[in-house]
Amino acid sequence: MRTVAEHREAVLALVRPLPVDTVDVGASLGRVLADEVVARVDLPSFDNSAMDGYAVRAADLAGAGEERPVTLPVDGDVAAGDTTRHVLAPGHALRIMTGAPLPEGCDAVVPVEATDGGAEQVAVRLEPEVGRHVRRRGEDIRTGDTVLRAGTHLGPGHIALAAAANVPQVAVHRRPRVTVVSTGDELVPVGSSLEHGQIVDSNHLMLRALVEAAGAEVAASVHLRDEADAVRAFFTAPDGAPDLVITSGGVSMGVYDTVKEVLTEDGGVEFVKVAMRPGMPQGCGVVGPGRVPIVTLPGNPVSSFASFHVFVLPALRAMAGIDPADDGAFEAVAGESWSTIAGRTELTRVVEEGGVVRPSGGQGSHVLGALAEASALAVVPADVERVEQGATVLCLPLLGHHRRRG
Amino acid sequence: MRTVAEHREAVLALVRPLPVDTVDVGASLGRVLADEVVARVDLPSFDNSAMDGYAVRAADLAGAGEERPVTLPVDGDVAAGDTTRHVLAPGHALRIMTGAPLPEGCDAVVPVEATDGGAEQVAVRLEPEVGRHVRRRGEDIRTGDTVLRAGTHLGPGHIALAAAANVPQVAVHRRPRVTVVSTGDELVPVGSSLEHGQIVDSNHLMLRALVEAAGAEVAASVHLRDEADAVRAFFTAPDGAPDLVITSGGVSMGVYDTVKEVLTEDGGVEFVKVAMRPGMPQGCGVVGPGRVPIVTLPGNPVSSFASFHVFVLPALRAMAGIDPADDGAFEAVAGESWSTIAGRTELTRVVEEGGVVRPSGGQGSHVLGALAEASALAVVPADVERVEQGATVLCLPLLGHHRRRG
Repeated sequence: MRTVAEHREAVLALVRPLPVDTVDVGASLGRVLADEVVARVDLPSFDNSAMDGYAVRAADLAGAGEERPVTLPVDGDVAAGDTTRHVLAPGHALRIMTGAPLPEGCDAVVPVEATDGGAEQVAVRLEPEVGRHVRRRGEDIRTGDTVLRAGTHLGPGHIALAAAANVPQVAVHRRPRVTVVSTGDELVPVGSSLEHGQIVDSNHLMLRALVEAAGAEVAASVHLRDEADAVRAFFTAPDGAPDLVITSGGVSMGVYDTVKEVLTEDGGVEFVKVAMRPGMPQGCGVVGPGRVPIVTLPGNPVSSFASFHVFVLPALRAMAGIDPADDGAFEAVAGESWSTIAGRTELTRVVEEGGVVRPSGGQGSHVLGALAEASALAVVPADVERVEQGATVLCLPLLGHHRRRG
Repeated sequence: MRTVAEHREAVLALVRPLPVDTVDVGASLGRVLADEVVARVDLPSFDNSAMDGYAVRAADLAGAGEERPVTLPVDGDVAAGDTTRHVLAPGHALRIMTGAPLPEGCDAVVPVEATDGGAEQVAVRLEPEVGRHVRRRGEDIRTGDTVLRAGTHLGPGHIALAAAANVPQVAVHRRPRVTVVSTGDELVPVGSSLEHGQIVDSNHLMLRALVEAAGAEVAASVHLRDEADAVRAFFTAPDGAPDLVITSGGVSMGVYDTVKEVLTEDGGVEFVKVAMRPGMPQGCGVVGPGRVPIVTLPGNPVSSFASFHVFVLPALRAMAGIDPADDGAFEAVAGESWSTIAGRTELTRVVEEGGVVRPSGGQGSHVLGALAEASALAVVPADVERVEQGATVLCLPLLGHHRRRG
């Protein structure tokens, strides 16, 4: 049997970072930089005032204090956005707003709170240091500085920085496009009237949601019946021209496991047992003349869910340009003991609260109730048979799960 | 001065959960349930096999073992999705697939691995317990059970569960629609050729990204110049018919703080100082005849960013139907000491790695470089003047920030 790490490597060997899109920086949330972002301006781009107050020469206020205010004539206002190049005459002041450009000749700003706030003339009650409340051009960033590295997964702060550096567009990897396939004659669409032996195709909707939560796009979404000809025809040219196909079901030991049967014939896909629970039957490879990467997941909902996190998600990350090792894994403390199977990596569905994790109820591979309560997957190594209360366990966050206050 | 908690309460008092949309369960990722979800079927909905193998009566295999296999005639196959109601004759077996309905009369399943796998007759090498490898109807969930509570923020596991329970549509709160307004004559669109004194309107793009990262929608996105008439006209009927307006800039002590000037006249908005850093000048209230809730944020990018997290995000959560206290805050250990201002809640931009946080460089309110490196905001209470190395600090995760392996 393969280990989880070995199968993940086999999956990752099938994919590479996708080509580059150039997008407006304002539309780049959640995308991954394919190239560094270089500042096109200094930040700040001009010396400016850090306060609302008065632009002065510090020397003109020598000796000023609470008891001995110094009064200067005020020659006018400098507003933020004022593009005039003001000059401060010696012995004078200009009223200045936060972010407004510093007049030539000014070397300090006195906050309005340290003055009488006058418009014609101003009484100043302190002697400023040179440079006080002045932000210098380029003190944060200089033109040509790399402000964001390739591989950055863009959040609002990154977008603010790129925009402030006057970079209107950024090069990002294309989002992975994924075709989601469910298989099995027993599956019917949600809301159907169920005949005896039929179940709702919940995996289909779950896998679509996982793809979306991973920041990828659903290219197409298909249910295949267990009919070899239809399955064969589909995989020759999967719908949606995807970057990756994922399937659920049809890959186990049964005589009706058509996906396995057809893709084994085709030869491009390897079906293996992986030493994990849930999720032992796995497969990966390429399909059709287009050699599209495919990952086949087990049909049990919980197996499919867990397998997605450890095999598909790293592939989507790699295609999006993210280091697949950046999986957000975190350490937590076991709040109770639980047993696992020796020789298999166990992905225990756990509820995490304040850094403490507990199994979330029934751990059977068909038990969705407990899955929906879980907030993480504890990754229990194959050589551990029992997680002891108080032990440290590595946990994977669940995709699209919103953490509550821990 | 108000505390952060007081101002947040003032903001929360302006909003309430938004009306309900009914959406397809497959399109409900990230939405918040307005009502509970009740199972429409038992799960499993019929007794079924947990393995690929043979449906048997346990009593027919009494005494079977590795050395003494018992052979039974195989009367046919039961596939998953087979809607026939099969009956198992005494002393016989039926081949059965995982998930297939259990034939009447069968009380155990023998995995294929414990047999010779025969199609006409099968040699079984164990004596099963009654009920072995059988999933009983309703053992996970029963029809009428509440499977998801109102207020659940729907992730892929919740969607799988609702779908499996055969619930095709769910009642969710409408997503908040937010109009984003930036103000200031100094601001120009990203990519402009900057004149002396001009800066890129990066806040606008940042606030849009924050709104989207919060799962809300940008209803409209507007830049206003510092002209009282235009500002007044805008707030009479804000573009986009939003549920909330947020502004940045124009709320400080300057003589060109037009937003403050106009909305103070109007009387619906209260401008206050909040004991926090960054972000002291804040405001909230309602605008126009429609009494649309508004939160006014300071113009400094870092102040605006931090203020969004502590005031706007709780309001968006409340409108979406989420408890605003569910802010994902977590405790971390200070990896170094840093000083803060006494008497103000300090929102220190920190980099978190493995549960340890360190300030992310320059903490000035205009310093975007350090903000883009941060992964959390440490919330340092007003009565703390210095965070000591090793101290526990409460941290807020950054919206839309993707955590790396900690």
